Amino acid sequence: MHRTPIMTCEALDRLAGARLFFKCENLQKAGAFKSRGACNAVFSLSEKQARRGVLTHSSGNHAAALARTARLRGIPAHIVMPQNSRRVKIDAVRSYGGSLTLCEPTLPSRESTARRVQEETGATFIHPYDDARVIAGQGTAAVELLEQVPDLDVLIAPVGGGGLLSGTLIAAKQMRPGIRVLAAEPKLADDAYRGWKTGRFVAVERSDTVADGLRTSLGKLTFPIIMDLVDEILLASEDAIVDATRQTLERAKTVVEPSAAVPLAALIENDVRLDGQRVGVILSGGNLDLSDLPW
Amino acid sequence: MHRTPIMTCEALDRLAGARLFFKCENLQKAGAFKSRGACNAVFSLSEKQARRGVLTHSSGNHAAALARTARLRGIPAHIVMPQNSRRVKIDAVRSYGGSLTLCEPTLPSRESTARRVQEETGATFIHPYDDARVIAGQGTAAVELLEQVPDLDVLIAPVGGGGLLSGTLIAAKQMRPGIRVLAAEPKLADDAYRGWKTGRFVAVERSDTVADGLRTSLGKLTFPIIMDLVDEILLASEDAIVDATRQTLERAKTVVEPSAAVPLAALIENDVRLDGQRVGVILSGGNLDLSDLPW
Repeated sequence: MHRTPIMTCEALDRLAGARLFFKCENLQKAGAFKSRGACNAVFSLSEKQARRGVLTHSSGNHAAALARTARLRGIPAHIVMPQNSRRVKIDAVRSYGGSLTLCEPTLPSRESTARRVQEETGATFIHPYDDARVIAGQGTAAVELLEQVPDLDVLIAPVGGGGLLSGTLIAAKQMRPGIRVLAAEPKLADDAYRGWKTGRFVAVERSDTVADGLRTSLGKLTFPIIMDLVDEILLASEDAIVDATRQTLERAKTVVEPSAAVPLAALIENDVRLDGQRVGVILSGGNLDLSDLPW
Repeated sequence: MHRTPIMTCEALDRLAGARLFFKCENLQKAGAFKSRGACNAVFSLSEKQARRGVLTHSSGNHAAALARTARLRGIPAHIVMPQNSRRVKIDAVRSYGGSLTLCEPTLPSRESTARRVQEETGATFIHPYDDARVIAGQGTAAVELLEQVPDLDVLIAPVGGGGLLSGTLIAAKQMRPGIRVLAAEPKLADDAYRGWKTGRFVAVERSDTVADGLRTSLGKLTFPIIMDLVDEILLASEDAIVDATRQTLERAKTVVEPSAAVPLAALIENDVRLDGQRVGVILSGGNLDLSDLPW
């Protein structure tokens, strides 16, 4: 793993009304925080398990991270991806030597296709987020951020399946019991928000948010962790997500994918009243498709 | 000024066959190294000179930098820009409060328009590169780079009007007499290359390279400095410049404008045989027009 740097940008601070400290997981290996969880999971397998390889279904960054980590350990990686995944993410899996199977862009299709591949290969399934080894790995981004910027008032992470958010919550609330941890979610995939408001698990109903890394529902492990520990879940509109993505490239000169811009979008769009507080923002990934920009 | 950070990227190292240390002037105030020269020039004016304001003609980044610096000193900035300048650069001048006059995209039109504005206002003309104060300011990027990475074998900078290259040469050859300093220039604006090959000043004949910051000819001050001190001038094709721009966004996740990618393009395209040497690369600016990408 890279110990990724912290980036600051006065222009983005002005937009958000807070002092932002961006944890640059867009500069992580394979371009996203997903490398952390994949690495923790793959290297915790026994020799016997590892020999038959690993398997996952993912909208992209977990897939690339798993393929890369499997190659580091010298074992096969079988990847099931929705056929509407972004080209840049499909290419990344191929470039890391992953064995690719495309499926319909629905959770049932992803799961049934993955089951079939698992029966054929005997590979160990590494869930993109609902796996304790993965959650623990993702939490290391927050651990580093709190070491690099010790005096944060608030931390904010995007939420899709909830692996990053769960790991962030466990790490941050342990290291700094007084810290506020917020989550940011696209309005078009607001299952975590609705679950948090009602206390009951709800599934995502559509899969068309531009934040393609956040199209999934929470899992059996991540749902209770998030309900227990998160302080607030903020929503972001599609327009705000696209604008925050663009502002991050234009003002901070750093390349992020739309999912990574959801926290900034939510801070700008909601009346959070941070009044200049010090806010850690996990910039989750940088795998933006430069041939198909969202603006 | 920002003391801009150094960025490294293994994927770009592999493309260039060298260890690259990028001096991130794309993260400089106003998005380019031009802020350094403008600042040195504006703050060296007497009170009496300063009161009547400053004036320049520029394809963009010098204009924005001068407008910003003039505002810092509280004096007017009169800016003459070619009408084919990129939107992002025109907007930047306006956002810093510069008073804008558009002209034809030729050096004679820039110069005659600037003369007219000078007669009307009495402002001090700050040439974008052929000015000793500007050259000295631009050289501070190399001074910092050599402090941040002391053991460089080679340094490479883009060359347009030659202000950055002249400052870089004077600073680097003084601080590290043994260092090799290379320049990189678009094939479509190869006046420095032809001057270096023949020993005689030649002017740029066309102004259509995608590297819009490098469309100008060398000046009376910069030509002899460069002829005297530069070790080699490399050329880059338009395709290589566009590809290097894109690779820098895609691999290093940092936003650069085409002019800033010309050194990387030249290192990739030419057989420079650097064999893993440590090469400092001045990433001159990051004002990429995200609504009009060159690919």
